[in-house]
Amino acid sequence: MSEPKPSPFGDMDAEAFRRHAARLTDWIADYLSGSERYPVLSRVAPGDIRGSLPAAAPERGEPFDAILDDFERLIVPGLTHWNHPGFFAYFSITASAPGVLAEFLSAALNQQAMLWRTSPAATELEEVALGWLRQLLGLPDAFDGVIYDTASIATLHGLAAAREWKVPGVREAGLAARAEVPPLSVYCSEHTHSSIDKSVILLGLGHRALRKIPADARFRMRVDALRAAIQADRAAGRLPMAVVATVGTTSTTSVDPVAEIARVCEDEGLWLHVDAAYAGVAAMIPGYEWVLDEAARADSLVVNPHKWLFTPFDLSAFYSRRMDVVRAAFSLTPEYLRTAEAGQVRNLMDTGIQLGRRFRALKLWMILRYFGADGVRARLAEHIRLAALFAGWVDADPDFERLAPAPFSVVCFRAHPSRGEWSEDALERLNAALLDAVNASGEIFISHTKLDGRYALRLAIGHIRTTDVHVTRAWELIKRQAGELTAFDF
Amino acid sequence: MSEPKPSPFGDMDAEAFRRHAARLTDWIADYLSGSERYPVLSRVAPGDIRGSLPAAAPERGEPFDAILDDFERLIVPGLTHWNHPGFFAYFSITASAPGVLAEFLSAALNQQAMLWRTSPAATELEEVALGWLRQLLGLPDAFDGVIYDTASIATLHGLAAAREWKVPGVREAGLAARAEVPPLSVYCSEHTHSSIDKSVILLGLGHRALRKIPADARFRMRVDALRAAIQADRAAGRLPMAVVATVGTTSTTSVDPVAEIARVCEDEGLWLHVDAAYAGVAAMIPGYEWVLDEAARADSLVVNPHKWLFTPFDLSAFYSRRMDVVRAAFSLTPEYLRTAEAGQVRNLMDTGIQLGRRFRALKLWMILRYFGADGVRARLAEHIRLAALFAGWVDADPDFERLAPAPFSVVCFRAHPSRGEWSEDALERLNAALLDAVNASGEIFISHTKLDGRYALRLAIGHIRTTDVHVTRAWELIKRQAGELTAFDF
Repeated sequence: MSEPKPSPFGDMDAEAFRRHAARLTDWIADYLSGSERYPVLSRVAPGDIRGSLPAAAPERGEPFDAILDDFERLIVPGLTHWNHPGFFAYFSITASAPGVLAEFLSAALNQQAMLWRTSPAATELEEVALGWLRQLLGLPDAFDGVIYDTASIATLHGLAAAREWKVPGVREAGLAARAEVPPLSVYCSEHTHSSIDKSVILLGLGHRALRKIPADARFRMRVDALRAAIQADRAAGRLPMAVVATVGTTSTTSVDPVAEIARVCEDEGLWLHVDAAYAGVAAMIPGYEWVLDEAARADSLVVNPHKWLFTPFDLSAFYSRRMDVVRAAFSLTPEYLRTAEAGQVRNLMDTGIQLGRRFRALKLWMILRYFGADGVRARLAEHIRLAALFAGWVDADPDFERLAPAPFSVVCFRAHPSRGEWSEDALERLNAALLDAVNASGEIFISHTKLDGRYALRLAIGHIRTTDVHVTRAWELIKRQAGELTAFDF
Repeated sequence: MSEPKPSPFGDMDAEAFRRHAARLTDWIADYLSGSERYPVLSRVAPGDIRGSLPAAAPERGEPFDAILDDFERLIVPGLTHWNHPGFFAYFSITASAPGVLAEFLSAALNQQAMLWRTSPAATELEEVALGWLRQLLGLPDAFDGVIYDTASIATLHGLAAAREWKVPGVREAGLAARAEVPPLSVYCSEHTHSSIDKSVILLGLGHRALRKIPADARFRMRVDALRAAIQADRAAGRLPMAVVATVGTTSTTSVDPVAEIARVCEDEGLWLHVDAAYAGVAAMIPGYEWVLDEAARADSLVVNPHKWLFTPFDLSAFYSRRMDVVRAAFSLTPEYLRTAEAGQVRNLMDTGIQLGRRFRALKLWMILRYFGADGVRARLAEHIRLAALFAGWVDADPDFERLAPAPFSVVCFRAHPSRGEWSEDALERLNAALLDAVNASGEIFISHTKLDGRYALRLAIGHIRTTDVHVTRAWELIKRQAGELTAFDF
């Protein structure tokens, strides 16, 4: 095969690519092992980054080195460092080195596994990697899997399948102006993630179709309240459709009583979707099998390797015992995507609203191989140990209090000085100020939530390089800042 | 700040990272400049890749070199090479070198720009890069932008906004069992992409709410038929909601008459969404300003840099003159995502159903700077020149015929031997066999469609390294295989 002639319209040449990749490799190697040189939370003000950049694209191309110089000089100060061992906000995540390398490769390959033929490797490696993960999680083989970008999209598919199953033909006929279709209801706890709200809105069910069931004192869905809500809806002429149970809620990582909820769903004929985006991976740790044990009764389930499995964003694993219903809700094949092998192969476009899809399975495969099942389990267990350590310090300190159980790697707590009288308002002001003060330090970044009206600080552990050193430093910093703040008059 | 102690639970060390990244850089450099060493279309059989891999994850971690060895040995044969200058199927795309490098960096940074504070850089660079692109496309400043993963998701947002605008309060109340909400209708041409169908299904409108308006002889939506369909729907008690006009349809890259459609939308009070996912970028070429000229009248519009702007998948640019409606359709902020600066800044989660989002703006910014506006325009114009060259060969050959105009970089054609009588069926069998034969060569990969019932081959140009050499080779191969095939009795 003859080599193509050089073209004035081509890409960067191979030699330049090697040179620039070497510079980037150095930068990234330093970054992955030394992101602590940066403040975790960016210190720029709104508009700083935008203001530092030209308002129009350059007319002539620029040297790649100049672009990297600007990246270092102008963009880096505007980064909040998610890939930093002092990042304890929201859910702490990791782009691990093998995952970053896999993404480099995946970008170059630019696979589109919409059809089997457009990437047999991405299609089948997705099946293999999801099979590995399914086994590690202890889920039955009956769960077929597909990779989406986010749990938001995974849940959307789960609920869209539920809608098609509960209202057969909704795909064709829609929801509007059909006298035979009563308003539908979806149930979740008051602690369920906001992506459920967005799914319900998107599907045309209406936000008010989402029944937020009160939680018990440990932030778990109250099953008696769930049953009562279903009965009330039926009495009012509504059609209960699905329940979303959460394994690891966003605020406290509480685990809804999946077994009891599954029983309700079975009794009532509802679709059960389990949102285990964060905590599902814990099921692979010896002693934590209970985490997904009862989730085997779900109709669909989502676990996010990009949350707590060292996988660079994005990769959300969706499993369903009823992938045929997911296909029935969505699949359609225009002529230009018909292939001879359809029917013998899995065409991933049949289970997705997105036609194009990146080669995400590559990173999951590489990460599971590089760390091994054992290495992954050990790291997850270590994060749980670190969280327990921190929770213990909180519990032992008379000027702090814990606001929720910490079953995994997240601790909800607040400063509550033992001296003086503190109203809820005063505690909120104190802790909000404490949050700002510790985040301004640059050493750690924590976030907050509200639990039963009480302002809570959240420390979430999930970065692969987080050690005792970081957790100790966080606690010392929080203590010190709380001490300084309470010298003021609150 | 003290360095953390080494941990047995950490990540790959920096030295190992450098070594593995160097090996990958070599592989990728060779790949980007020499993907022609591989057959474009993978030659594996269904199940080959899956069968070559273990059924379970390894218990112990493995050396990264062993994983890369397996990648080369087991995975590469299963790749269909989208990043290959002989890839002429579907829409030909490119992961350009600066884009691949940007993705490497983006993976390491693992930014989540859901809130401004969680990545000021990703939030503001997105605004800047989309501003640059907007200017290059000649769109008015009134178009605010946001980056999504795919055009499927972008269109879903456009139509969800249209639904909220046309049925105020649908977000809260939903569509079901509301006597005051008649069935809605959405209009597109029979050549509109299947993602529109999926959006309409998802939104609960029902697939039958999508009116596929017939096209004219040049595959453009017939505006008289659009007006008639709207009138018929109104007469039948339906509520017309939105029109999707396509600039560069998937089969033929035809351009719907956007100006006339915009007029209809204005007259009738409908939302106009323009799907310019493929061809929109052509608007930056001198002489092609017409491509998006009238799209300035749209309510929302999507252009995909990952299609024909040398950007590794995924990056879809969504613009809307009514981003407030998009926000009204979706935005909600749970307590755990409230920040002090809300109101002063753009929080990208407010315009998306996905909460998490990769740092995609980085690659768009780097690509526009590296090639420059001028360099991008030159490459797009070159692809149009190459397509015109190929179309000219087809037109000049008595044994071939063109089946559609080729306004951009896609040519629809078929073999139609001048000797003998050829029924439509015989022509379909001949051309389907021709497709298989040329794709089996490994030198090129083309796809097909059907146009007015006629089986058409599609040659799509869009890879940055595609030159006269490849297009000439494709034509010679097609000619030769057609000659060989017509020696058989069809």
